[in-house]
Amino acid sequence: MNAIEIIRKKRDGGKLSYQEIDFMVSNFTSGIIPDYQFSAFLMAAFIRGLDKSETSFLTESMLKSGEIIDLSTIEGSKIDKHSTGGVGDKTSLILTPVVAAAGIKVPMISGRGLGHTGGTLDKLESIPGFRTDLNLSKYKSVLKKCSAVMIGQTKDIAPADKLIYALRDVTATVESIPFITASIMSKKLAEGIDGLVLDVKTGCGAFMKKQSDAVELAVSLGNTAKAFDKKVIAFITDMNQPLGNYIGNWLEVYESIFVLRNKVKNDLYELSTTLAGAMIYLGGKSKNIEEGKKIAIELISNGKAFEKFTEISELQDGDVSFILKPEKYPKSKYRREIHSSKSGYVQAIDTYRIGMTSVMLGAGRLKKEDKIDPKAGIIFYPKIGMKIKKGDLIAEIFTDNKDVIETATDSIKNSIELSRSKTSVPKLIKKKIEF
Amino acid sequence: MNAIEIIRKKRDGGKLSYQEIDFMVSNFTSGIIPDYQFSAFLMAAFIRGLDKSETSFLTESMLKSGEIIDLSTIEGSKIDKHSTGGVGDKTSLILTPVVAAAGIKVPMISGRGLGHTGGTLDKLESIPGFRTDLNLSKYKSVLKKCSAVMIGQTKDIAPADKLIYALRDVTATVESIPFITASIMSKKLAEGIDGLVLDVKTGCGAFMKKQSDAVELAVSLGNTAKAFDKKVIAFITDMNQPLGNYIGNWLEVYESIFVLRNKVKNDLYELSTTLAGAMIYLGGKSKNIEEGKKIAIELISNGKAFEKFTEISELQDGDVSFILKPEKYPKSKYRREIHSSKSGYVQAIDTYRIGMTSVMLGAGRLKKEDKIDPKAGIIFYPKIGMKIKKGDLIAEIFTDNKDVIETATDSIKNSIELSRSKTSVPKLIKKKIEF
Repeated sequence: MNAIEIIRKKRDGGKLSYQEIDFMVSNFTSGIIPDYQFSAFLMAAFIRGLDKSETSFLTESMLKSGEIIDLSTIEGSKIDKHSTGGVGDKTSLILTPVVAAAGIKVPMISGRGLGHTGGTLDKLESIPGFRTDLNLSKYKSVLKKCSAVMIGQTKDIAPADKLIYALRDVTATVESIPFITASIMSKKLAEGIDGLVLDVKTGCGAFMKKQSDAVELAVSLGNTAKAFDKKVIAFITDMNQPLGNYIGNWLEVYESIFVLRNKVKNDLYELSTTLAGAMIYLGGKSKNIEEGKKIAIELISNGKAFEKFTEISELQDGDVSFILKPEKYPKSKYRREIHSSKSGYVQAIDTYRIGMTSVMLGAGRLKKEDKIDPKAGIIFYPKIGMKIKKGDLIAEIFTDNKDVIETATDSIKNSIELSRSKTSVPKLIKKKIEF
Repeated sequence: MNAIEIIRKKRDGGKLSYQEIDFMVSNFTSGIIPDYQFSAFLMAAFIRGLDKSETSFLTESMLKSGEIIDLSTIEGSKIDKHSTGGVGDKTSLILTPVVAAAGIKVPMISGRGLGHTGGTLDKLESIPGFRTDLNLSKYKSVLKKCSAVMIGQTKDIAPADKLIYALRDVTATVESIPFITASIMSKKLAEGIDGLVLDVKTGCGAFMKKQSDAVELAVSLGNTAKAFDKKVIAFITDMNQPLGNYIGNWLEVYESIFVLRNKVKNDLYELSTTLAGAMIYLGGKSKNIEEGKKIAIELISNGKAFEKFTEISELQDGDVSFILKPEKYPKSKYRREIHSSKSGYVQAIDTYRIGMTSVMLGAGRLKKEDKIDPKAGIIFYPKIGMKIKKGDLIAEIFTDNKDVIETATDSIKNSIELSRSKTSVPKLIKKKIEF
């Protein structure tokens, strides 16, 4: 077996075996296959495609490039959720304590924000003291104690993914369903889970703008999870407007606290309880998703989910006083109220632009090295279909950077499209796919 | 403009502009675009293809990466020939003096042998003292003095080609008609020629096994030459058997001397005079190819072509005594006669194998760094359609390496396929394409 032969085979549309894919991945990861050969391979695979089994082979090879966490000593079903990311998407902060409170283990490994979307790790770290860099033994002990744990990817998990992603990023081979599938699943499967709920977002604030692409990705992710004998359910959900109203790291923790305290019943509440319901069902604690959702709602209303959130935070060294009294959190230097200069029904929201505006305010990153301001962000009130009058408060922005206030204000105003006639509200959960 | 955008455009089947192709080539050549990006670009262009104008753009960009020789101070038409290479193909040694003797300038820049095919430079250098590494001013002065010059590619000519070829070689992107076209034409156009005769070979001893591929390449080469306002004629010629009977560097000079001295009238003579005829026609010294061919035949029979060959050799520091008395050339340590062990009509000759056997004997290279033995090689007598009796002398081999004699003998015997019934002789010149 040699690299050129394998590249040529894929170049000509051939189907690769596990041995061939693993030869490429493992030798690239160990530095034997140079990046110029691997990038030619990536481009050939990008254009010619990888079928269902080749995608599983790639996932398996990337998974095996690193450590696969063994959770067999910890009792109970281990269920996680993966979202493809969006603006204001903070469901992980809510569903993790909910599902843990239902007696299911949630061993969640998350990522950081990049570009217009936020990341769970950045949000958690806005809680003073909260540590997401636990080692494996601490990871297991927290999971055992409180049924959930939320950390970042360690360097031992799927190291091939990091190397391959860095090369895809500079060779125009990012937007490939098989590559995205292998990247996501190699990391999720390393967690040692039994089941996975997928939240694949579609719309102007999602990576998958078109619903058909989102469905294709969901099917590919689900098929791959199935190939590794994992239980899996996928949802296609709307990302044509921010989820909830708060965008920015601490702001999103803040909103999550209010959902967990049963004070808010919005789209975020709806989606979080649905996903939690599916996790509870996969974990064997309900007969179906609907019953699981009822359990989730009950665990929020009886305070157990919120209690679980403080418990997880405490075990991960978070300063719980901020969770119990969120209003005492440090404030941004600048707060600006934005009022509508027009009247009408909200027809569309440029959600990508809202996300990029929050980055501008300090809440996100354009490059991996960029620093984040946990206080910065946007409270954004409009929802599609809502009637707005001229002068209405439509948003509040928070930043320590005076220079960006005017631009951010204009950007938010321009991201809202108003119409004279009533507009239809997009469906939050567009599709459910079972495997 | 940035590399990722251009790679993405070609990846998605887009058509690139000159600016885009030149951005990639010039920045790769200068080291700004890293090899891993350029190899992704190569694979995308390999699979998606480059059309006629994109192929010209690539050629132009590669051409402009280096020096374009200005021959405007030298009077007369400058015409060259390019062959895609084969076994025993020594037409350059014959047609260059023929065409120069006809009063046309032949500013030939050639390559070395690699794999089963030989290279004109290696053949010329088998003449003791013959220098192919002339600098530009010497190149022009030889051309001016004797109407012809034969040198190797300098590092100033199309440096992009060398870099790109090295990357293609290790990324399974060699066998692409547009890339092959740009590689050949960027070097040929740098010679400052007015016209070009193409000899695209097809058959078991050629790079293009199938005639349809050879035609496709010839059309691509011809179209590109046309795009640069060059006169061009292409021939598709047979390479299902060695051309002439001598294979190996000095052996091929030896056979050429005998053709130039009007002593041999074989397939080599036939093809050389046809190609020379086309060059004479393109150079404006005849009304058509046929008349040009008659001039070529006349220049051989009246001794002027042979005289020109000694003149070129002398001006390039070759020891002419070996050309005048070729029998005094040093002999290989070992000479083995090979006799047929069967009778029959020659049905097929594994020409690739004959070429590789000559490499084994010392006449060629597997790697660029390999040394060549100028004396080594094969005199190979069978031709397709010929009747052979058991015991007939079919070949003589020459080598200084005792260890390879037995293997080479077997290899040559096994390369000949005999049939009981008469077999048809393949047409030497299969097709002529004018542009």
